[in-house]
Amino acid sequence: MKERIEICLSGAGGQGLILAGIILAEAAGIYDRKEAVQTQSYGPEARGGASRSEVVISNNPIDYPKVIKSDILLALTQAACDKYVKNLTKDGILVADSSMVTQIPSISAKVYQFPITETALKKLGTKLVTNIISLGIIVGLTEVVSTEAIKKAVCARVPSKVKEVNEKALLLGFDIAKDLKSEKCEDKY
Amino acid sequence: MKERIEICLSGAGGQGLILAGIILAEAAGIYDRKEAVQTQSYGPEARGGASRSEVVISNNPIDYPKVIKSDILLALTQAACDKYVKNLTKDGILVADSSMVTQIPSISAKVYQFPITETALKKLGTKLVTNIISLGIIVGLTEVVSTEAIKKAVCARVPSKVKEVNEKALLLGFDIAKDLKSEKCEDKY
Repeated sequence: MKERIEICLSGAGGQGLILAGIILAEAAGIYDRKEAVQTQSYGPEARGGASRSEVVISNNPIDYPKVIKSDILLALTQAACDKYVKNLTKDGILVADSSMVTQIPSISAKVYQFPITETALKKLGTKLVTNIISLGIIVGLTEVVSTEAIKKAVCARVPSKVKEVNEKALLLGFDIAKDLKSEKCEDKY
Repeated sequence: MKERIEICLSGAGGQGLILAGIILAEAAGIYDRKEAVQTQSYGPEARGGASRSEVVISNNPIDYPKVIKSDILLALTQAACDKYVKNLTKDGILVADSSMVTQIPSISAKVYQFPITETALKKLGTKLVTNIISLGIIVGLTEVVSTEAIKKAVCARVPSKVKEVNEKALLLGFDIAKDLKSEKCEDKY
């Protein structure tokens, strides 16, 4: 794996991307014992309803904490995809929620599409776990943090009342990643 | 006010400093229509139980998102105070929770001491609002964001069940700041 990995989690306000960024950074920094920085920026974009959480993970101390070029981009809305895909590295990975992102720009990065929001609702009865399913997909596809670390980080951060559904969401994300890797069809979800 | 204000919220894990940082950044970036970046770093310190949330607020786009020298430092533990006070500007402000920080290092910055955790428990029945009282004190003392903006940001972020106690905590923080400014004694709390 690269020395420094840059991840951009993008979508709209209310999709839980800040929490997802914190969980991913804690998985790396606390449980996988790496260095990690999570950054949240607010300005005109945030006032327009966009949300973007950035995480940088490294084996060494991190000098510049913001994403320069994303290695991994999660796009939960079309607007976010259109905006942040430009900043994805050529050999990066785009995970796009096909419930929301219908137009994938032509890029050289590897693209994984899956109806994440739809599946959250259908399989777990709530859109609120879309962020955690997304983390499961990202970790399953990229191993950017260990599965043990992300499990611990999810459990430590989500309120105890919703722990079970969030654990299920994470495992569902791992399963989806496995199928996306082997290019199985989505019909089972 | 300075063009770029750097705030460091420091203490231990579980004291709600990440949420406080997010609320402060959202107050500035969404409700006061400035630019703001919130950063959370994880590494050996976080694994030792320390927690530090950084917020940079500016009228212009923010190039470097991390704190270089804090203008405002909140210290909710002695360890955090000892560590981060070195990085406070000479004419900065230290807000120390005197329930936890008993040794204030000799510094040229302005120091405000108040038993925040103790007062949270005594006046509002829970330590969990220590972070929000602290935000009230910081905003009351420094006007780094407007009181309207911080009120909106608190309401938007805290779960609806605990909105009332958090609103009270914020107002209590404003009151404490007023007294700290006029150097009234703490006995009324």
